[in-house]
Amino acid sequence: MKLEAIINDPSRIKVNEAVPFEILNDDYVGKSDGVHAVLYPITHEEVVAAVKYAIHHDLKIIARGSGTGLSGATAPVAHELVLDLSRMNRIHGLDESTMTLTVEPGVQLHEIQEYVESKGYFYPPDPGSKNSSIGGNVATNAGGMRAVKYGVTRDYVKALRTVLATAETLELGSINVKSSSGYDLKDLFIGSEGTLGITTRIDLKVIPLPKYKKSYVVAFEDLTLATRAVAAILQEGIDPTALEFFERDMMDLSVAQTGITFPVAVGKSYLLLTLDGDTETSIASREIELQRVVTEHQAMAFMPLNSEELEHNVWKLRDNLLAAVVNYTEQVTMDETVPINHVATLYEYTKDLEAEYGVQLMSFGHAGDGNLHTCVMRGDLDQAAWTEKKAIVLEKLYDRIAELGGLPSAEHGIGLIKKPYFHKMTQPLYLEMMRKIKIAFDPENRLNPTKVI
Amino acid sequence: MKLEAIINDPSRIKVNEAVPFEILNDDYVGKSDGVHAVLYPITHEEVVAAVKYAIHHDLKIIARGSGTGLSGATAPVAHELVLDLSRMNRIHGLDESTMTLTVEPGVQLHEIQEYVESKGYFYPPDPGSKNSSIGGNVATNAGGMRAVKYGVTRDYVKALRTVLATAETLELGSINVKSSSGYDLKDLFIGSEGTLGITTRIDLKVIPLPKYKKSYVVAFEDLTLATRAVAAILQEGIDPTALEFFERDMMDLSVAQTGITFPVAVGKSYLLLTLDGDTETSIASREIELQRVVTEHQAMAFMPLNSEELEHNVWKLRDNLLAAVVNYTEQVTMDETVPINHVATLYEYTKDLEAEYGVQLMSFGHAGDGNLHTCVMRGDLDQAAWTEKKAIVLEKLYDRIAELGGLPSAEHGIGLIKKPYFHKMTQPLYLEMMRKIKIAFDPENRLNPTKVI
Ligand SMILES: Cc1cc2nc3c(=O)[nH]c(=O)nc-3n(C[C@H](O)[C@H](O)[C@H](O)COP(=O)(O)OP(=O)(O)OC[C@H]3O[C@@H](n4cnc5c(N)ncnc54)[C@H](O)[C@@H]3O)c2cc1C
Ligand SMILES: Cc1cc2nc3c(=O)[nH]c(=O)nc-3n(C[C@H](O)[C@H](O)[C@H](O)COP(=O)(O)OP(=O)(O)OC[C@H]3O[C@@H](n4cnc5c(N)ncnc54)[C@H](O)[C@@H]3O)c2cc1C
Repeated sequence: MKLEAIINDPSRIKVNEAVPFEILNDDYVGKSDGVHAVLYPITHEEVVAAVKYAIHHDLKIIARGSGTGLSGATAPVAHELVLDLSRMNRIHGLDESTMTLTVEPGVQLHEIQEYVESKGYFYPPDPGSKNSSIGGNVATNAGGMRAVKYGVTRDYVKALRTVLATAETLELGSINVKSSSGYDLKDLFIGSEGTLGITTRIDLKVIPLPKYKKSYVVAFEDLTLATRAVAAILQEGIDPTALEFFERDMMDLSVAQTGITFPVAVGKSYLLLTLDGDTETSIASREIELQRVVTEHQAMAFMPLNSEELEHNVWKLRDNLLAAVVNYTEQVTMDETVPINHVATLYEYTKDLEAEYGVQLMSFGHAGDGNLHTCVMRGDLDQAAWTEKKAIVLEKLYDRIAELGGLPSAEHGIGLIKKPYFHKMTQPLYLEMMRKIKIAFDPENRLNPTKVI
Repeated sequence: MKLEAIINDPSRIKVNEAVPFEILNDDYVGKSDGVHAVLYPITHEEVVAAVKYAIHHDLKIIARGSGTGLSGATAPVAHELVLDLSRMNRIHGLDESTMTLTVEPGVQLHEIQEYVESKGYFYPPDPGSKNSSIGGNVATNAGGMRAVKYGVTRDYVKALRTVLATAETLELGSINVKSSSGYDLKDLFIGSEGTLGITTRIDLKVIPLPKYKKSYVVAFEDLTLATRAVAAILQEGIDPTALEFFERDMMDLSVAQTGITFPVAVGKSYLLLTLDGDTETSIASREIELQRVVTEHQAMAFMPLNSEELEHNVWKLRDNLLAAVVNYTEQVTMDETVPINHVATLYEYTKDLEAEYGVQLMSFGHAGDGNLHTCVMRGDLDQAAWTEKKAIVLEKLYDRIAELGGLPSAEHGIGLIKKPYFHKMTQPLYLEMMRKIKIAFDPENRLNPTKVI
């Protein structure tokens, strides 16, 4: 049996050992009585064998990539068998004739980016966590910095091999470009957070690497002005690759942590944009448009990041925002989304809540997608006040997001942490249909139980 | 009851009347004993009422848009109640702040294109059948000419309102740009050919209208050379909006039918391309690249379609190809797809079959997507020979497509006509999971029974 290869290799099984699960907030730490064991399969067949083992011993299963998820989706709750796929990390290769990259699920995002870029190709999805696994990216439908132009992980998954709860292997999608051949089950699996199947192989779409790119910082007096500029930038067809926003306060945390200087000294709210293209003139002409639009929208400063070093530094500060907040204080970082015309409304509401409850709230995020990361921060609140205020503020925020037609998660997933809000915000019939699908694929509720649904 | 409004209006109900169903080939015409009735609802509530009526009288239901489908998916097989949605055709409006167009399902594609373009926006999906309904486009995940750059209908559907077989209303998707909030049921419904629900409202994504475009005809000695050029065009990042191919023989049929002159006199196989962009220089520089690449790949002629008239005429000839074939002889038009590196292999196989069986086979299609339309043509074969040879040739073609990793339908859907091939070509477990999903949504098999699965 395939499983013996793992079980007889002490480096590939950890029984009842503490494993570094996601950084969870207080609510979840210590709630679990641990896991049954952690296995490190390296082949598809070993994953199948492990699932058969779990069936035989009636164990629940958690698939785990790099453990960078932010929704508690890999937190153990039922003495699960953990399948850690981080060692299943071979790049099978890039087929240039169909522009398909084939990888195992444990390959890390930065490895994929480096591999394809060295060959002149481009894998656009770009979450901040470059060490996350592609299997985890697919399971959470990860987004990131370049979604506004290029879309999210979903848009780059051509095919998946997946092991179902029954230990059967289901092939989803194909390397064909189009399909109207039967129900689209591939998209059902993308973003299903390990509750429908365990991915063991992924075919990704890659595109030609744009030849030129250039980034810009634009400073505004406040976020409301900045979001008006965002709408205009999108409508004018300036087609930015990235369209991020953040506040001065939050950037200051990242500056303090990294020691890097943020180059713009004026303003309170910022947009960070990239333009890419195949000619320098394409970028130059859109740069003129961009400058015109932001100036019309009362930008206080417009700074092209002309040197490679400057560009690198500003993006490093941006990538580090979340880590800086985590370092600064205990916090809950949301990844809500609202229709793009409501970003300013939601932001202003966070400021109202801050004033009303005395809880510090900071925001950054992917302005071009309406995807905010609102951080609810403990600061110097004592434990009782923090617990109470955090619960109220989160409840109110998610209620407001629902009113604005938004969603609890744009890119991190529901997992455990967002489950109560997700259930409150979602049409009951929708939840019921999700449950029916879960039962159709996993009648014994073996895969990642209690997560999402 | 809402239904009375329809039933008491003779213009909105047709009982036991012949209705112009899809142009089906011989195999399907006359197999049905007709429909129970055709209803023409104009509101969501009327659709709900009609489904309740069908439940009460245990009738099966077929949703119908413009009836231009090519897979027999609206053919009656079980004395169905037909819900013809063509009169539910209001455009609710374009919300520029979120770039969302909201429509009813009966709105025709050309109406959508004209409406948004008049406001400076662009709805890219572009099937040849401009009079097809957007509800039908969604239900078949229609593709068309601009998929190579802009994707297919699926990529432009933000949200759907749909009536389930239980008469419940399920809301799918949202106007948010990103989501990792629960299972993606919207994509399950797109392309499900009326078997999971009846769409009554659609939110579409529109994008800014590109400011410039220009088309080109490139002539080759044969299709194998043309498809090598296609691969290079895609890899070089020339990013064409359309990348169509056709043969001289087939173009001659369209020329004969329309009386329009095809402007290139040399070559046997052709590529028809469009480049679009926001500056003339972006197009000009890619035109230089394009000309270089096709010349390196032995193009016999490269013709920019410099005047609007010329461009219009060539595209009209292209749009008319299928109608020309239908007019010329009895035929079966496939919409198979293979990975783009296998287009030439499949095409050469059609020529082998033609030689071996004496059945005329012509091809055209969306070369940039690997999506061929192979036409199996009767010509002067007598009925017995045609019936026999057609069956053998189709069987062999679909077998070869499967070997090449292809799919039976890229954009028209499975319906009735492609069902046997689809079932043969698909993993049994995949079909089983499709069936389980169908049962979860439609336990009484009320919606479009016997289609797809
Ligand atoms: C500093 C930081 C920045 C971040 N920035 C972003 C960002 O910009 N955009 C973004 O979208 N996310 C971001 N994230 C969140 C996180 O990186 C993503 O959710 C990532 O996709 C998770 O990948 P992982 O390999 O770490 O998965 P894990 O945390 O190990 O697992 C996450 C989920 O995926 C499932 N899973 C993992 N592998 C498989 C598999 N092979 N088969 C089936 N299910 C599987 C798990 O069961 C779980 O449900 C960030 C996180 C951090 C810590
Ligand atoms: C000349 C010609 C050229 C064509 N070119 C292309 C092309 O380039 N690309 C392409 O993709 N297709 C093409 N087609 C095929 C056809 O136009 C498409 O399949 C189209 O999307 C069907 O739309 P319809 O409104 O005619 O749907 P119908 O034919 O009425 O129905 C098709 C399917 O959709 C379902 N349906 C319709 N409305 C609804 C609804 N509101 N809710 C739920 N289900 C619904 C039906 O039940 C059926 O399963 C072409 C057809 C012709 C005749």
